[in-house]
Amino acid sequence: MKKRSFQFSSKTVQYYFDASFDLLEKIAGKERAVLVTDEHVFAAHKKKFKGWNTIVLKPGEAFKVQQTVDVLIDQLIDMGADRKTILVGVGGGVITDITGYVAGIYMRGIDFGFVPTSLLAMVDASNGGKNGIDVGVYKNMVGLIRQPSFLLYDYSLLSSLPLAEWQNGFAEIIKHACIKDAAMFKLLQEQSLPKFRKDKQLLAQLVERNVLIKTKVVLNDEFEQGERKLLNFGHTLGHAIENMYELSHGQAISIGMTYAAIISQQLKGFKEADAVMALLSRYGLPTLAEFDKKKAFKVLQKDKKKDSVSIHYILLEKTGKGVVQPLLFVQLEEIFKQF
Amino acid sequence: MKKRSFQFSSKTVQYYFDASFDLLEKIAGKERAVLVTDEHVFAAHKKKFKGWNTIVLKPGEAFKVQQTVDVLIDQLIDMGADRKTILVGVGGGVITDITGYVAGIYMRGIDFGFVPTSLLAMVDASNGGKNGIDVGVYKNMVGLIRQPSFLLYDYSLLSSLPLAEWQNGFAEIIKHACIKDAAMFKLLQEQSLPKFRKDKQLLAQLVERNVLIKTKVVLNDEFEQGERKLLNFGHTLGHAIENMYELSHGQAISIGMTYAAIISQQLKGFKEADAVMALLSRYGLPTLAEFDKKKAFKVLQKDKKKDSVSIHYILLEKTGKGVVQPLLFVQLEEIFKQF
Ligand SMILES: NC(=O)c1ccc[n+]([C@@H]2O[C@H](COP(=O)([O-])OP(=O)(O)OC[C@H]3O[C@@H](n4cnc5c(N)ncnc54)[C@H](O)[C@@H]3O)[C@@H](O)[C@H]2O)c1
Ligand SMILES: NC(=O)c1ccc[n+]([C@@H]2O[C@H](COP(=O)([O-])OP(=O)(O)OC[C@H]3O[C@@H](n4cnc5c(N)ncnc54)[C@H](O)[C@@H]3O)[C@@H](O)[C@H]2O)c1
Ligand SMILES: [Zn+2]
Ligand SMILES: [Zn+2]
Repeated sequence: MKKRSFQFSSKTVQYYFDASFDLLEKIAGKERAVLVTDEHVFAAHKKKFKGWNTIVLKPGEAFKVQQTVDVLIDQLIDMGADRKTILVGVGGGVITDITGYVAGIYMRGIDFGFVPTSLLAMVDASNGGKNGIDVGVYKNMVGLIRQPSFLLYDYSLLSSLPLAEWQNGFAEIIKHACIKDAAMFKLLQEQSLPKFRKDKQLLAQLVERNVLIKTKVVLNDEFEQGERKLLNFGHTLGHAIENMYELSHGQAISIGMTYAAIISQQLKGFKEADAVMALLSRYGLPTLAEFDKKKAFKVLQKDKKKDSVSIHYILLEKTGKGVVQPLLFVQLEEIFKQF
Repeated sequence: MKKRSFQFSSKTVQYYFDASFDLLEKIAGKERAVLVTDEHVFAAHKKKFKGWNTIVLKPGEAFKVQQTVDVLIDQLIDMGADRKTILVGVGGGVITDITGYVAGIYMRGIDFGFVPTSLLAMVDASNGGKNGIDVGVYKNMVGLIRQPSFLLYDYSLLSSLPLAEWQNGFAEIIKHACIKDAAMFKLLQEQSLPKFRKDKQLLAQLVERNVLIKTKVVLNDEFEQGERKLLNFGHTLGHAIENMYELSHGQAISIGMTYAAIISQQLKGFKEADAVMALLSRYGLPTLAEFDKKKAFKVLQKDKKKDSVSIHYILLEKTGKGVVQPLLFVQLEEIFKQF
């Protein structure tokens, strides 16, 4: 186990890398804690939840909505959860997003921590303090930015993760490589998904490297005034098509990154769009795709990153160097037309 | 108009005392702002809302619930409200609580300000940054602590406020006098509700005095670790009986203050319980009352100020000096039995 702590604007967050789930008892305590998980994770790791107060939610993005929040709050009241309770989200990004959100609003805010169980949650969703729920077709329309007290990484939890979810996780890892880490881009080109899945050492290093990339960005810009926007690489178009076509988050942003790389070619002279696409394919992710450009453009205009006439699009100058590019909607519409 | 600004932990709040509603155009701007109000306030001051984007909610505590939040969020999405929008709550405490809450969660937090229109909202609900909604019988079970950007006080809005709501406002004013300001207690004994209602000058001074009392307490302890608890004087029992008997908030805490004064007599040698009751009566508020002690005690045990075996009860050492008193539940149960 390797412990590191990071000082955010109003909270110190403890990261326990390469740790065991059992450590949770020391960190949170069975008396004080209420674990929140979903049916998949609970079924795959039943034994681990023994003796813990646990709330089991339905799995999947479709349940990252207010109705699930209502259910969770009612159960917390029934359990007598109070200001001293600590909520622990044990699951993928849906569970960490909902748990963080409910911890932020229950009794005007209680303590919380995460045990991410999907690769995507490990390298991305569980860190940085953003949380929230979807409203209709709009992703993460409601939520907070509020840091957890701790993150516990137990890589053995990934043993039950389906292949498609590994691929989703790699979408965010490739994103990090594109915007911040050319050396990791190269590493990913040399390695493969099955290799990482088999080699625990290699995987542990990869997860940590990604957590540090994201954490650094967030520490520099917790409330997304500038640099943090880079993490939206592939997400602007990605979010628009994710719910339109019921794509997984990883698939959606993979397509989003593909088109962002192509736009980067046109506007920034980016030379490695082909390498980006090849890498996404290597990790089982989709690249060029047919989609309703008009409709996607409309949803995107309503996306939360908009202001009235322009949008911040994340582009690549070169591999490992993302930039925030303001684009007029009219300009973007033209670009879309060519695809 | 008199402008003052106060520096909270992560926000400077502008207070515009003795101002005119028209100033809102300068502060918020008709382009950027969405006003949130209720049917009563809208009907009484229709002209003022002309030219403003306005969302009109159903009035009353019964609507301070998630369903109203859902409605509000859907309307904001329809209007195309984005991160640059500023929400302005124009109303009583129900409107300021909901507006502040929705501003806190919409797109992970947007800007907001208040124009309080009830006496209670002016002297209490609109300041201090607490917001929230009720869940079932539990008051303010869900919410945030997050400061507004501004408070605009236009006393002329009170012209339409019903008498019963003036009385509710005085309940919080008497609370402030009890815990913090013996001189104001005396002033209230000498004056009367009709006098304050008629004399704008006298009223303006009273409102400002109360705002400063509350603001000072909050500045000392924004996240309620200690001193801010004093503001719960009368509220522990008050909240328990408020929804049980469909009392107004002012009536409920008036009864709560009465019993807290009597307990103060027993435990703290407080000598002026009679004067407290007389003052409450003078402002049209109830004091001793029949209520189901067992049931109230049960609700109170589930109240958010509990920890497992004891509760922080606010008592008076003398008029103008409130104290936080930890009480065991068993002890409190004994005391309740005598009533
Ligand atoms: N807050 C943030 O900063 C942030 C960042 C990125 C993504 N997100 C959010 O995260 C979500 C996507 O994350 P996700 O892909 O982890 O979603 P998820 O929680 O839906 O998990 C994906 C699937 O894997 C299952 N699963 C998770 N761990 C498992 C395990 N160990 N064994 C077996 N099955 C397991 C889940 O039950 C689910 O079916 C989206 O809602 C996205 O908006 C948030
Ligand atoms: N956030 C806090 O710190 C805090 C503090 C105290 C109270 N509160 C909350 O405030 C609420 C009580 O406040 P309230 O009494 O103002 O409630 P309210 O908003 O329900 O207003 C009371 C009534 O007066 C009407 N009204 C308001 N202004 C009017 C005007 N100018 N003309 C005509 N009618 C008008 C309203 O429509 C309503 O019918 C409770 O929900 C309580 O929990 C919050
Ligand atoms: Zn993502
Ligand atoms: Zn009150």
